[in-house]
Amino acid sequence: MIITFQSDALETQVESVVQEVERSGLRAFQRFSAGRWAVAAVSGGFGRARPGLGDRLAALPGVLTVQAEQQPFVLASRAFIPETSSFELGAVQVGSPDLLLIAGPCSVESRSQLIETALAVKEAGAHALRGGAFKPRTSPYSFQGLGEAGLELLSEARELCGLPVVTEVMTHEDVPFVARYADVLQIGARNMQNSPLLHAAGESQKPVLLKRGMSATIEEMLFAAEYILSHGNFRVMVCERGIRTFESLTRNTTDINAIPVVQSLSHLPVLLDPSHSTGSWEFVTAIARAGVAAGADGLIIEVHPHPEQALSDGAQSLKPERFAELVRQVRGIAAWMGRKC
Amino acid sequence: MIITFQSDALETQVESVVQEVERSGLRAFQRFSAGRWAVAAVSGGFGRARPGLGDRLAALPGVLTVQAEQQPFVLASRAFIPETSSFELGAVQVGSPDLLLIAGPCSVESRSQLIETALAVKEAGAHALRGGAFKPRTSPYSFQGLGEAGLELLSEARELCGLPVVTEVMTHEDVPFVARYADVLQIGARNMQNSPLLHAAGESQKPVLLKRGMSATIEEMLFAAEYILSHGNFRVMVCERGIRTFESLTRNTTDINAIPVVQSLSHLPVLLDPSHSTGSWEFVTAIARAGVAAGADGLIIEVHPHPEQALSDGAQSLKPERFAELVRQVRGIAAWMGRKC
Amino acid sequence: MIITFQSDALETQVESVVQEVERSGLRAFQRFSAGRWAVAAVSGGFGRARPGLGDRLAALPGVLTVQAEQQPFVLASRAFIPETSSFELGAVQVGSPDLLLIAGPCSVESRSQLIETALAVKEAGAHALRGGAFKPRTSPYSFQGLGEAGLELLSEARELCGLPVVTEVMTHEDVPFVARYADVLQIGARNMQNSPLLHAAGESQKPVLLKRGMSATIEEMLFAAEYILSHGNFRVMVCERGIRTFESLTRNTTDINAIPVVQSLSHLPVLLDPSHSTGSWEFVTAIARAGVAAGADGLIIEVHPHPEQALSDGAQSLKPERFAELVRQVRGIAAWMGRKC
Amino acid sequence: MIITFQSDALETQVESVVQEVERSGLRAFQRFSAGRWAVAAVSGGFGRARPGLGDRLAALPGVLTVQAEQQPFVLASRAFIPETSSFELGAVQVGSPDLLLIAGPCSVESRSQLIETALAVKEAGAHALRGGAFKPRTSPYSFQGLGEAGLELLSEARELCGLPVVTEVMTHEDVPFVARYADVLQIGARNMQNSPLLHAAGESQKPVLLKRGMSATIEEMLFAAEYILSHGNFRVMVCERGIRTFESLTRNTTDINAIPVVQSLSHLPVLLDPSHSTGSWEFVTAIARAGVAAGADGLIIEVHPHPEQALSDGAQSLKPERFAELVRQVRGIAAWMGRKC
Repeated sequence: MIITFQSDALETQVESVVQEVERSGLRAFQRFSAGRWAVAAVSGGFGRARPGLGDRLAALPGVLTVQAEQQPFVLASRAFIPETSSFELGAVQVGSPDLLLIAGPCSVESRSQLIETALAVKEAGAHALRGGAFKPRTSPYSFQGLGEAGLELLSEARELCGLPVVTEVMTHEDVPFVARYADVLQIGARNMQNSPLLHAAGESQKPVLLKRGMSATIEEMLFAAEYILSHGNFRVMVCERGIRTFESLTRNTTDINAIPVVQSLSHLPVLLDPSHSTGSWEFVTAIARAGVAAGADGLIIEVHPHPEQALSDGAQSLKPERFAELVRQVRGIAAWMGRKC
Repeated sequence: MIITFQSDALETQVESVVQEVERSGLRAFQRFSAGRWAVAAVSGGFGRARPGLGDRLAALPGVLTVQAEQQPFVLASRAFIPETSSFELGAVQVGSPDLLLIAGPCSVESRSQLIETALAVKEAGAHALRGGAFKPRTSPYSFQGLGEAGLELLSEARELCGLPVVTEVMTHEDVPFVARYADVLQIGARNMQNSPLLHAAGESQKPVLLKRGMSATIEEMLFAAEYILSHGNFRVMVCERGIRTFESLTRNTTDINAIPVVQSLSHLPVLLDPSHSTGSWEFVTAIARAGVAAGADGLIIEVHPHPEQALSDGAQSLKPERFAELVRQVRGIAAWMGRKC
Repeated sequence: MIITFQSDALETQVESVVQEVERSGLRAFQRFSAGRWAVAAVSGGFGRARPGLGDRLAALPGVLTVQAEQQPFVLASRAFIPETSSFELGAVQVGSPDLLLIAGPCSVESRSQLIETALAVKEAGAHALRGGAFKPRTSPYSFQGLGEAGLELLSEARELCGLPVVTEVMTHEDVPFVARYADVLQIGARNMQNSPLLHAAGESQKPVLLKRGMSATIEEMLFAAEYILSHGNFRVMVCERGIRTFESLTRNTTDINAIPVVQSLSHLPVLLDPSHSTGSWEFVTAIARAGVAAGADGLIIEVHPHPEQALSDGAQSLKPERFAELVRQVRGIAAWMGRKC
Repeated sequence: MIITFQSDALETQVESVVQEVERSGLRAFQRFSAGRWAVAAVSGGFGRARPGLGDRLAALPGVLTVQAEQQPFVLASRAFIPETSSFELGAVQVGSPDLLLIAGPCSVESRSQLIETALAVKEAGAHALRGGAFKPRTSPYSFQGLGEAGLELLSEARELCGLPVVTEVMTHEDVPFVARYADVLQIGARNMQNSPLLHAAGESQKPVLLKRGMSATIEEMLFAAEYILSHGNFRVMVCERGIRTFESLTRNTTDINAIPVVQSLSHLPVLLDPSHSTGSWEFVTAIARAGVAAGADGLIIEVHPHPEQALSDGAQSLKPERFAELVRQVRGIAAWMGRKC
């Protein structure tokens, strides 16, 4: 349930609505956006509508509208927060005209590999460093990541290059531990509907980068975000990374439509990962340009100094010099779109 | 790497191969199936082929073939174990001519709902009781299950009706806890690639029912099973439960092909879940018959005494009397297929 | 618009409704099925509802219900004709307890190949002979069929073995010509939405076997059938032949759900083509059994005396002796389903 | 088979290769592109390799390489013609830095609707006018187009606004007739594998706009183009128009990857149709920008003066003023990409 207020409503009027919602056994979130207050009322689990609550709220002073019908997601919706959510990450303001560029290797493989990459992507213009220490893999015999040693290398790289670190967390139990090292917790495509992990990421109050599941609908991705938001953690970015289709010349199909569709439904910043969404380094730059032109709030790109030796995702990783060229091209499109990067 | 032996090979010869494999830093599993021994050599993580190992093994006495090329999965393959894997579950032998029938509600909702269903499905001919205490849901506001209280109701139902219990576990941390109540750990479609959970299910040494991810390939499902098997836990059943396609008149598309395809590639018993694979109770019985005719080793069916009041999956749940009719029809097909149920 | 009548309605009352419909500028079709008359009123092209017509019809004597809402398809619906449509084809009654078995080569390649196959499938129990003289191919450099010479060989094979002939027609212009040779016109998956061809097949008044498009929904297939029916040609069978999905171990994904779903929506007989829906001969028999168990009204199977030399679809073609075994197995399932074959 | 020549090869040497190819029973096409001659040798139907031909050709003077292996497509490949194919259409050179903008209504509905749209899109900057006179529709009761009257209105609109006309042809029989009115023959998604139509479009020697089938792979689309090219008609554009996936918030999923993938495999210009690929007018402009940023050679956009009254595709049609805004935005991206429009 979303309650919007008249533009001249008083904070005490908002507070009265919050109290009425909470008396009814629901939880209330309040936000000021686009010149008006709104309150979102969500359940603690069961989502049963309380009889009469909508009518009682509509009668309170300052209230403009009560959208009582159960929406698919509430806290993530633009009906609740009309303006794009924005938060600081290192030197940029995510969800603003700043275009966020995250880059780095798929997996942290060694100190030299990570540091070399970190310095190169910083130099080329990246705002954050990505790198996986825990890797979800299809086969139990594939490289599974360096674990804690990888997290420590990421910390060291952050010290050296000054970029905030984005790294994946795979289980709810690891969240507090990974959160000590990471600036942004990444939830990978295979875990998009891992609800204990989503809850833990919400509780952590850390920024979260939530990747779309390989065959998740846009609506399901926003539902997954809602799990995180329901803990009051609103620093969430969602990320299109390609969906599984019948086309086999590319690893995945970039659902470029998802960018404007997410933006029409939700206030959450939306990124594009053209490395996974194409699966081939030769197509990454063209699709990165397309993502920015479609309105993406940022990009996440795999970069490796020696892609042919990478322990994972070599085929889709850019060499540092190609990444620098990508940044140059993306800046051109971004400038025309009125964005900085 | 899979090493097969001549039919008259001695156990000491098999033992020598195992020792040579382990000396090389790999782990070895040995099985006698279809009249011959085989050894599977798998890595502890990285999967690098050891130079010269294949040649050394081929030269040992009793060895017939060495399949050195890295196969997609090893322990789950029919190349390793030619005969279908079989294990006891309650009154039936899974993976034998016995056709396994698992039935029960999607979620455990209350004592009366569970007990009523358990007695009814037992009466109708089911061999195991399903019921979810932990529910992965798309929305954080949907019913998430009764948790431990649900597990205790399942225990009580087992006492009363004598059927083994199949129930879902959602996190690796919960495995030891759920394993105290469950006879079979179910890993749901959303968690098919949750590798910490797969590892924990492997370590538990409990029978596992692994459901295919909504958009997982058959190969990926068998890779996921390999995670469990790599802990020496070979009591694994895989389950086709429908895949996501463009067709929208049904909730999912039953990939009936998966049944013979899995059987051609793997020794693991394969079940069909026509409740999820269709999403509508009116199509469940026809697709259950089809599954048995295609060769499935079992079925898992959602049954609810009052589907219209179910907190989850009501549309696809059968009333007990319809389930009884399903069993009657399935028995006819099974008998013709040379199976008992 | 569908008008149903009371069970004791007089034919003159039905006739009055037909006249009122036609006066309104619509076309009327009348059928007696399941103990009652029904009239379907469809437009000649635009499908605009005539104001007041529904009310006028509802007031006429004998009328029981008027379903005025524009349904997705009308003539193909069970709302119009509750009983499965049935017609004679050679020795069997399609759409009755008879299970129709169509078999033969993908393409007619030579006299000896066709005659050998025809005699073998007849001997094994097939009721009709399939064989393509015009082949739609992905590449312009693949074998495109023998054309008219192929049709003449099919005629000769019919003479020799006494089986009716099913063959594909690829353009509306060829319909009258192919109809001189064929007993059933096949419309292939690539042409399922070729509306000029559908119209021409309707006008021909020949039995039609309409294959589902590779990515057509069930509803779209029934719409395509509606094109044919709208010419008063009701001898139409629809055929599930697999849909395109992400699964790559099989050529297509057999949408086995489509069988009961079509039967719930439409009176048209529904066949399964397990050769195309799997793409591998080794899975054809299992899926054929599944199709019959799901309730299919028939099967269409590719058979070739020397699959390894076939100019098209060799991988999915059965040798005659394997087809004989398929028939044996399918008969067992069919008998249990109360069907003859 | 593709034969490339040394950069200083003489035309008489090329001619000798052509003669040798033709003596062998194949057809030869020759092109000069990227500073060298190449000859493509394709069969007249069966595609059997002639024994020894490759070796004989490799020995001829001037020949640099002979790629003998049967490629999936030959005439459409960049291996044959390295530079993007280019041809004149009205005031623009398709396949050059010019960005082609085609706009107009889905269907020609009336004189006033068409003329109003034509003048508006011309004014806004379109280079060609689209409009359907023959409409392939899912239902036989939907509007099927004005037919010849529609073609005459298109002719009149061309006279008035000076834009070349792009219109769909649905059957091979209609090609000569439609070609009298059209400047570009459009082959729609449903007909992408209608081989008689592809052949006829090839024979017509008219420019062709070939739309990707709803579930066609990129490779199948290029094979379909090969049918047209095999008649010596090289003025072919291919068009990404969205593919069918599980995502249901949009009508189709724009496969933006297809743009750089086609360009890596083929010399044919590639367009994007964001109207069909999204299905909602509100997303068309963002996806049009993305297409240009990805490198598309042109766009085709549905425009209707009164979308809410359109007889087809109203939801995805832009009003003329929104189209003008789209052109403004697209020009910004195009300029940065070094293209004119």
